[in-house]
Amino acid sequence: MPVPGPGYSITIRVEAPPTASAAGDLTSAVGRVGGVITAFDVVESHADRVVFDITCNAMSANHAKDITDGLDALPGVRVRKVSDRTFLVHLGGKIEVTSKVALRNRDDLSRAYTPGVARICQAIAANPEDARRLTIKRNTVAVVTDGTAVLGLGNIGPAAALPVMEGKAALFKKFAGVDAWPVCLDTQDTEEIIRAVELIAPVYGGINLEDIAAPRCFEIEARLREKLDIPVFHDDQHGTAIVVVGALRNALRVVGKDITKCKIVVCGVGAAGSAIIRLLQHQKPADILAVDIHGIVHPDRGGLDSNLEQIAATTNVEHKAGSLHDALVGADVFIGVSAPNLFGAAQVATMNSDAIVFALANPDPEIDPVEAQQHAAIVATGRSDYPNQINNVLAFPGVFRGLLDAHATSITDAMLVAAANAIADVVEPERLNASFIVPSVFDNAVAPAVAEAVKNAAQAN
Amino acid sequence: MPVPGPGYSITIRVEAPPTASAAGDLTSAVGRVGGVITAFDVVESHADRVVFDITCNAMSANHAKDITDGLDALPGVRVRKVSDRTFLVHLGGKIEVTSKVALRNRDDLSRAYTPGVARICQAIAANPEDARRLTIKRNTVAVVTDGTAVLGLGNIGPAAALPVMEGKAALFKKFAGVDAWPVCLDTQDTEEIIRAVELIAPVYGGINLEDIAAPRCFEIEARLREKLDIPVFHDDQHGTAIVVVGALRNALRVVGKDITKCKIVVCGVGAAGSAIIRLLQHQKPADILAVDIHGIVHPDRGGLDSNLEQIAATTNVEHKAGSLHDALVGADVFIGVSAPNLFGAAQVATMNSDAIVFALANPDPEIDPVEAQQHAAIVATGRSDYPNQINNVLAFPGVFRGLLDAHATSITDAMLVAAANAIADVVEPERLNASFIVPSVFDNAVAPAVAEAVKNAAQAN
Repeated sequence: MPVPGPGYSITIRVEAPPTASAAGDLTSAVGRVGGVITAFDVVESHADRVVFDITCNAMSANHAKDITDGLDALPGVRVRKVSDRTFLVHLGGKIEVTSKVALRNRDDLSRAYTPGVARICQAIAANPEDARRLTIKRNTVAVVTDGTAVLGLGNIGPAAALPVMEGKAALFKKFAGVDAWPVCLDTQDTEEIIRAVELIAPVYGGINLEDIAAPRCFEIEARLREKLDIPVFHDDQHGTAIVVVGALRNALRVVGKDITKCKIVVCGVGAAGSAIIRLLQHQKPADILAVDIHGIVHPDRGGLDSNLEQIAATTNVEHKAGSLHDALVGADVFIGVSAPNLFGAAQVATMNSDAIVFALANPDPEIDPVEAQQHAAIVATGRSDYPNQINNVLAFPGVFRGLLDAHATSITDAMLVAAANAIADVVEPERLNASFIVPSVFDNAVAPAVAEAVKNAAQAN
Repeated sequence: MPVPGPGYSITIRVEAPPTASAAGDLTSAVGRVGGVITAFDVVESHADRVVFDITCNAMSANHAKDITDGLDALPGVRVRKVSDRTFLVHLGGKIEVTSKVALRNRDDLSRAYTPGVARICQAIAANPEDARRLTIKRNTVAVVTDGTAVLGLGNIGPAAALPVMEGKAALFKKFAGVDAWPVCLDTQDTEEIIRAVELIAPVYGGINLEDIAAPRCFEIEARLREKLDIPVFHDDQHGTAIVVVGALRNALRVVGKDITKCKIVVCGVGAAGSAIIRLLQHQKPADILAVDIHGIVHPDRGGLDSNLEQIAATTNVEHKAGSLHDALVGADVFIGVSAPNLFGAAQVATMNSDAIVFALANPDPEIDPVEAQQHAAIVATGRSDYPNQINNVLAFPGVFRGLLDAHATSITDAMLVAAANAIADVVEPERLNASFIVPSVFDNAVAPAVAEAVKNAAQAN
């Protein structure tokens, strides 16, 4: 069930009678229908009326309406205007292009533009590697989507995906000083997407694929990695896998288990789940069971696509068949990137002692985290309102900072593992506990640590 | 012949003996080989030596070497380091992507990114026009090139073209507050260019084609105008045409001629020349003679491509054949966008009285402007070191500002004419004279005037 949060924050301007009880009546009315007030300001005060701005978090559009209707129904109270603070943040877009050079006079213009720029062009034409020195290529990443798997919203197309890509670009700059630019492609054809990215690549030092549906995303990533001389990273796969593997490293430290003796269930075998399995395999767990909507993945199940076939061939050493509930029996770790409410406390009780549960489906996890805690030693989710939030923001800014600084031409699993370890190791042993297995996304140490680790791995490559 | 300019500016750090004559010796040595000193600074002063930074403009790499060699040859003088100021300006690129929203804490993140951003995506999915309100689309232009006709450098490819596109983006922001982004395409195939621009279009409110070779540029522009619901502008065509037509409007005011009675020679029938002819035709001049490397264009000449065929059909009312020199006899106006040194004072003398000569080939005009002035009433060039510089910077920022503000879905000749008139009319009658037919590129009144004119024309459309 959703809770009121800052993602749905409204400011309601109301006129009320100038009575001693007015403020109390207003806040009570909001609280009565479940709104959470975060600010309360007097805007105007007159002999016959007072005007307030009430800012509060709501759960949904209907809930916001309940709140304003509740206020409007109070005697003598009139709602003048409701502003949605989330929409206000996005008005006119969230990023801009700014000049780093002065253009004050004709001499500036002669150097930054014609005729001086001609010599820069000639230098790059003569020595293409100079593009990384003399252009934005050295610090710039394309955030590429086709709009087919945007957040939990599904296939909403390239224009509707743009707000997410802009947000991502803002995060890239904020956390790692990377210049990122949204590329929202008006096609869902694999060949066209690959070709379009190839064509635009000269401007960029790296490609971040984003919110492209599985299984298409696997082919796009693999083919682009072959074709391009810059690293190609699919955040929904590799970003998630990095943070999960880093968090699991710390979770295992807390419970004192060795991954090579752990049985791990990965539920959901789309972009994220497949990448998590592949990255975990570098650490040689005792076994991994992949589970999708049809149950445990095994080679004899039939109807497997090439991605699932490969996963079937490299997981499930005992060739188990069965449901998610069957898979959980005796497992040390559950990692879910799938769907809400798939199991309960009873199933967690069947897991091995000191069970670790990462229930990452958004916004509603595979199991209610409070229920999971009854039997699990460590619980993590994708949500910010519970401990241990698994958030890609911990990975992608630092990863690209490191790749760009190393002038990397490709990306390897060794770099992803290095990034995962770096995230885990930002949490010092004395801070590490069952409710703190990953650093905060606002911990300034994360991106530099990830960048350094990725840069070193790239240079060792 | 090139002259030393700020586009080739070097700073030379030299050590010299601490004598009274040292500074004079150094500056004389630079002057002797034709370097133009723009700054002279003492960096260190010791008992046994003085260190100077000498900044000077040169003509070429060889010239810069002559200057440093000349200094190095002075007794007791040692050149320590030579920095190229133009290269310094371009290091690391000239533009960056910055966030317009605060990302200080979790609440900011919840509104700008997940979960709040999901509602913005849903709003756009439900009502695509909202993209102009809630994303960067409303203020963002793609600067698209294939790198085939960059400045005077020809086909240098997409990576080497990037410094020009970055410079253009910086100018867009500086002069009109437009966010522009470089799209340098790694293909020279017409169909691929058209498709790539279609695919990336959702992010942009307009397309500025740049430095794409003729005749391919005509088809790309025409086809994209058909396919896209945002305006497509080819700066080499339309930007140049706007400034030329605006400048000509003022030139004719100075000499007191009516364009409908003028014979106009346009030399060079590539992207710029063709667009100039088409825009001039809206003003119904008495005649236009188009001239290319094979002479005057006329329908019987043979071997005409579709662009030249159309021009042949709508110009040259007397079906003249012959050379550029033949075309100039009796002409009121010469507009050259072609090649250096095609004619001299003798040919200008054959033009009509009060002749107007726009010799715009860069960097060396069709006729030396000093020579042209012997017989012409008004001379303009593309250069900044003579009066009347015809510079596209006067047009493109304001044009896109107007298009974006009007939410224009296409661009018409009426908008281009409105832009041309607006540029001309920025020069008040009392400032207008033969040496001042266009405003300075740094005149802050230009872009707003052009934007307003284009916006009005777009809204009237």
